[in-house]
Amino acid sequence: MMSGDDGTPAGLPDEFAFIRRHFRRLASPGALDLTDDAAVFTPPAGRELVIAADAMVENVHFLPDDPPETIGRKVLRTNLSDLAAMNATALAWLLTISIPKARLHEAWFSAFCDGLEEDQRLFNLGLLGGDTTSTHGPLTLSVTILGHCAPGTALRRNGAKPGDGLWVTGTLGDAALGLRALRGEIQDPTGFLSERYHLPRPRIGLDLTGIARAGIDVSDGLVQDAGHLARESCVGLIIYADHLPLSPAARSTGPDALQAALNGGDDYELLLAIPPDREDALKAEAASKGIAITQIGQFCIGHDIRVITDDGKPITLTGHGWSHI
Amino acid sequence: MMSGDDGTPAGLPDEFAFIRRHFRRLASPGALDLTDDAAVFTPPAGRELVIAADAMVENVHFLPDDPPETIGRKVLRTNLSDLAAMNATALAWLLTISIPKARLHEAWFSAFCDGLEEDQRLFNLGLLGGDTTSTHGPLTLSVTILGHCAPGTALRRNGAKPGDGLWVTGTLGDAALGLRALRGEIQDPTGFLSERYHLPRPRIGLDLTGIARAGIDVSDGLVQDAGHLARESCVGLIIYADHLPLSPAARSTGPDALQAALNGGDDYELLLAIPPDREDALKAEAASKGIAITQIGQFCIGHDIRVITDDGKPITLTGHGWSHI
Repeated sequence: MMSGDDGTPAGLPDEFAFIRRHFRRLASPGALDLTDDAAVFTPPAGRELVIAADAMVENVHFLPDDPPETIGRKVLRTNLSDLAAMNATALAWLLTISIPKARLHEAWFSAFCDGLEEDQRLFNLGLLGGDTTSTHGPLTLSVTILGHCAPGTALRRNGAKPGDGLWVTGTLGDAALGLRALRGEIQDPTGFLSERYHLPRPRIGLDLTGIARAGIDVSDGLVQDAGHLARESCVGLIIYADHLPLSPAARSTGPDALQAALNGGDDYELLLAIPPDREDALKAEAASKGIAITQIGQFCIGHDIRVITDDGKPITLTGHGWSHI
Repeated sequence: MMSGDDGTPAGLPDEFAFIRRHFRRLASPGALDLTDDAAVFTPPAGRELVIAADAMVENVHFLPDDPPETIGRKVLRTNLSDLAAMNATALAWLLTISIPKARLHEAWFSAFCDGLEEDQRLFNLGLLGGDTTSTHGPLTLSVTILGHCAPGTALRRNGAKPGDGLWVTGTLGDAALGLRALRGEIQDPTGFLSERYHLPRPRIGLDLTGIARAGIDVSDGLVQDAGHLARESCVGLIIYADHLPLSPAARSTGPDALQAALNGGDDYELLLAIPPDREDALKAEAASKGIAITQIGQFCIGHDIRVITDDGKPITLTGHGWSHI
C-alpha cells in the first residue's frame, strides 16, 4: 500500500523522494545510498581523523540571489579550507540543509547539487549523509567535513616561534571586495572579485608536513586570523602592509584594497608560520602545486600584533576583521 | 595589542569569547580546546565508524519557549537515537548553531550548555567542534554524531525477512501527544507527555548484535518508519494495532492515543526486526538494560503495509506520519 513496483516507491513522503531525486547522486559508498539512519565507514588504517563543522546562513554568509551552483560549493569549500589549514586530506562530508520551501524549487536544487557534484570530483570526496528540514527563516546550511592525516602531522595554530616568517597563499582581500561589488558599492568589470566571494579556493593538497609550524585559514580577515596564530602561539607578530599580495582586480579598486586585504573575510587562503630554513621547501611545494606564496610578516617575541609599512610607519587598524556572531 | 596577560585575551571578537565562555567546558580531548580549525582524533582500533547528522529548527522541531536545557539535549538525543538504530556506540559529536542574537542571552546559553553537559555525562561522549553563526531567522541547530561498532555489526534497515517479528522499545505516541499538550490542545496533568516531547530517550546501549536483523528509530511515526524497514527489506508488514505499547498518560488521553502511536513523530524508540528464535535473546538483553520491549507486528511476503486489530479488521490510515520537509 505504501510501496510501488518500479523502485520509485509511491506514497513516499516528500523528504525521501526529494533526497532520492537530488542528493543520492552525491552519495559515497559508506553512505548506504542515504537510506539508513547513519553512514558506516572504515577509517583509513594508521591515520588520524580530522573533523570540522561550519554553518552558512543566507544574508549572513551568502546572498539570496547568489547562483545556486555556488552556494553549496562555498560551504563545502570553507570546510575543505579548514582541512587544508590542518594539513589534512579530505575524505567525506555530511550536509544538513534547512530550506525555506516556499521560495526554493526543483531547478534551484538541481543546480545546487550540480555544483556539489562538480566539487566532489574536483576535491575527491563523497557525501556520507545528512538531513533536510524546512524552515520559516533563511536558507541555512551546515557541513561537517572529515579528513585524515598521518599521526602527529595535523597543523595546529599554536606552533609559531619568534623568527618564523608569516606566509600566505594566493591573494588577499578579493572576496571582501567581491561582496562590495555584488552590493553595487564598487566596480568589478571582469567579475573576478565576485567570483572569489562566491567560490573560495581551498588550498587543499599542499603538503606542509615538516614545513609549516602553525597554520590557519583566513576566514575572518588577515589581522584577526593571523592574530589567532600569534595568540595561540604566545608570540608577537609584525605584518608588512606593503607586501600583502593583491590581485590586479583588487589593486584596481584603489585604496580600498589594502583595507580589504587586512580586514576582509572569506578569502580562505592559508596563513603559515615558516622557519627561515624551511622557506625553500615551502616555495618548492607551493610551486609544484601551482600555488602562489608570499611572505607578509614575521613572528617575534612579545604579544603585540603590529601592521607597518616598508618605511616603518604603523598602520592604525580600523577594525579587527569581522566576526560571524 | 590584541592579547591580554590573564589567559582571557582582551579584544577577542565576540564569537571567540562566546565559545570560550559556554562551549569549552563541553570539549573532548580531540577538540583541541575548540581553538583550532578542526579536531583531531584517533579512531578506535579495529572498529567501523558510524556517522549521522540531523538538524533542528525552531517552530519546526521545537518551540520557542521550550526550556533551553532541553533544546540542545533534544537534538543531541535524536542523533544518539540514530546511532542506537545502527547498533553503534557513541564517541563524539559536533554542533553548529545559528543564533537569533537579539533574542537569546547569556542565561539562555548557560542553561543550554548545562543540559548538554548533563547529557554528555549520561551518554559518555564529548564535543569535538562546531561553529556559531548569527541568523535573522529561527534558532537552528545541526548536530553530527560519530559512533563506532565492530566491523559488520552495523544494523541496517534492509535486513528484515518474512517471519521476523516487528518489535518496539518503550511506548509510542507520547511525544506527539506531548506536543499537543504544549499547544494546549489536550491535558497532560503529570507533565509526562510534554517531557517525552522535550527529552526523547535514545535507546543507546542495547547490544543488538546477533539479535536484530534490521532496525530504525521512530522519528516520523510508527507507520512511516516501519514502512521504511519493510520497503528497504522488500517485504510486507502487518502491524497489530491492539498491541501498541501505550503509556498510562497516553492511554488517559482517550482515542487520540492510538492515532498518535501510529502516526506521531518524535518518539525515538527503536523498531527492530527479530527472527522468532532470537526473541528470548532480545528479551534478555532488553531486561538487562531495563528497557521495555513489545512485539507489535510481523513481517511477511509481499509489499503491503497493513494495520489490523485483533479481530482482524483493517485500520484505515489517515496519514503517513509526518515529514520534516
